[in-house]
Amino acid sequence: MSGWLVIAGLGPGDAELVTPEVTRALAEATDIVGYGPYVARVAPRAGLSLHPSDNRVELDRSRHALELAADGRRVVVVSSGDPGVFAMASAVFEAVEAGPDPWRALDIRVAPGITAMLAAAARVGAPLGHDFCAINLSDNLKPWALIERRLRHVAEADFAMAFYNPRSKSRPDGFQKTLDVLRDSCAEDRIIVFARAVSTPEEDIRVLPLSQATAEMADMRTMVIVGASNTRLIARDGRPFVYTPRSVEA
Amino acid sequence: MSGWLVIAGLGPGDAELVTPEVTRALAEATDIVGYGPYVARVAPRAGLSLHPSDNRVELDRSRHALELAADGRRVVVVSSGDPGVFAMASAVFEAVEAGPDPWRALDIRVAPGITAMLAAAARVGAPLGHDFCAINLSDNLKPWALIERRLRHVAEADFAMAFYNPRSKSRPDGFQKTLDVLRDSCAEDRIIVFARAVSTPEEDIRVLPLSQATAEMADMRTMVIVGASNTRLIARDGRPFVYTPRSVEA
Repeated sequence: MSGWLVIAGLGPGDAELVTPEVTRALAEATDIVGYGPYVARVAPRAGLSLHPSDNRVELDRSRHALELAADGRRVVVVSSGDPGVFAMASAVFEAVEAGPDPWRALDIRVAPGITAMLAAAARVGAPLGHDFCAINLSDNLKPWALIERRLRHVAEADFAMAFYNPRSKSRPDGFQKTLDVLRDSCAEDRIIVFARAVSTPEEDIRVLPLSQATAEMADMRTMVIVGASNTRLIARDGRPFVYTPRSVEA
Repeated sequence: MSGWLVIAGLGPGDAELVTPEVTRALAEATDIVGYGPYVARVAPRAGLSLHPSDNRVELDRSRHALELAADGRRVVVVSSGDPGVFAMASAVFEAVEAGPDPWRALDIRVAPGITAMLAAAARVGAPLGHDFCAINLSDNLKPWALIERRLRHVAEADFAMAFYNPRSKSRPDGFQKTLDVLRDSCAEDRIIVFARAVSTPEEDIRVLPLSQATAEMADMRTMVIVGASNTRLIARDGRPFVYTPRSVEA
């Protein structure tokens, strides 16, 4: 039996945002491996083994998935969003590099998905419509000094910004420090978007000027987008549209 | 009759990468508006009007789509990739802002898609697995000096980078200048990926060190990804895996 491993992106939550490629991989799989809440998004069926695991055990989970594939199983590692953006793909390849040589010969594929920043951007218009950066604000796996250095450079170069993992119970203060850096570098009317649980029943979206943003507006399920200096707000009944123009004047 | 306008992302080319949300919008539409080659990806059917247009007429096309929606039509503006990433969404909102007031009250939605950088990244592993920037290298709508300033900041802050529109017939020299800036800032073994026409029959992917990259390796259909300084190559039979680790040492 010839095993394979697909690292698949389930998108932000809505089943309508799961690609047919991912749906097919799930239908052909013998084993689903991933963080519990993501595995729970896969419908059980006869012949399919579900292997939910806790958060923060990405390398153990990756090794388990690779062992299953090496045994001839058809394995899908599920991520939310896109697996290549602050999700499981890097962990799997890290495990491949550190693992036994035969793992390098396995049939390993990445099936892309709709990542949170693009789902969040779509909800408000096109705030990432020009050059932008994606930054993981968690300092669990990198020093805060690097995050701060990156924030200052992207503000200086006037990129729009998308922030993943802005704030968690174990890191209550990091996002306040991020807001402080932004206030150093950006005008107080810079547009900021808090997009929580996009495409799920708990979706909640706020658009406001940087001056009114507070750290408590973000949690684990929030995607934060900060416009560039020329990002525009279109007033209308209800939530305004937000977009970053395609042109920048010389 | 109540019209609407959906700005939809068709993904990089493969029908398996089109979301069900986009497929449903196309099925419910009365009118498809977009650049000719993207409109050609929508199957004709009775009752569906196709409105293909040339490249570089994004604002005219947007106004036309908004007029149709204001007349009560169900309009899909098609983009390749994700409409919010260097595609049609910004142009439509620019037209809304400059247009008549009633356009602001229209039912306008953005349906996200798989953008080229994430499809390209998936093909080689997870090169965008940590903080990264997306830059449009075309200087048609912004000064080259701004592009160069952004390149220098993101290299200095050690982001991975994804470059859209690296080179075209009308801009034969810009990508050579980009390579020159990168060579100023990055070691010669920095990993660079040229991913052309990902997910189509013409797909062609090259992974090489920056020292071996030449401007001719990119064209209009090429997505270029440059790793961060810690991006890794996993040697194997055939094309290596490329990934950027989740961790950065202090």
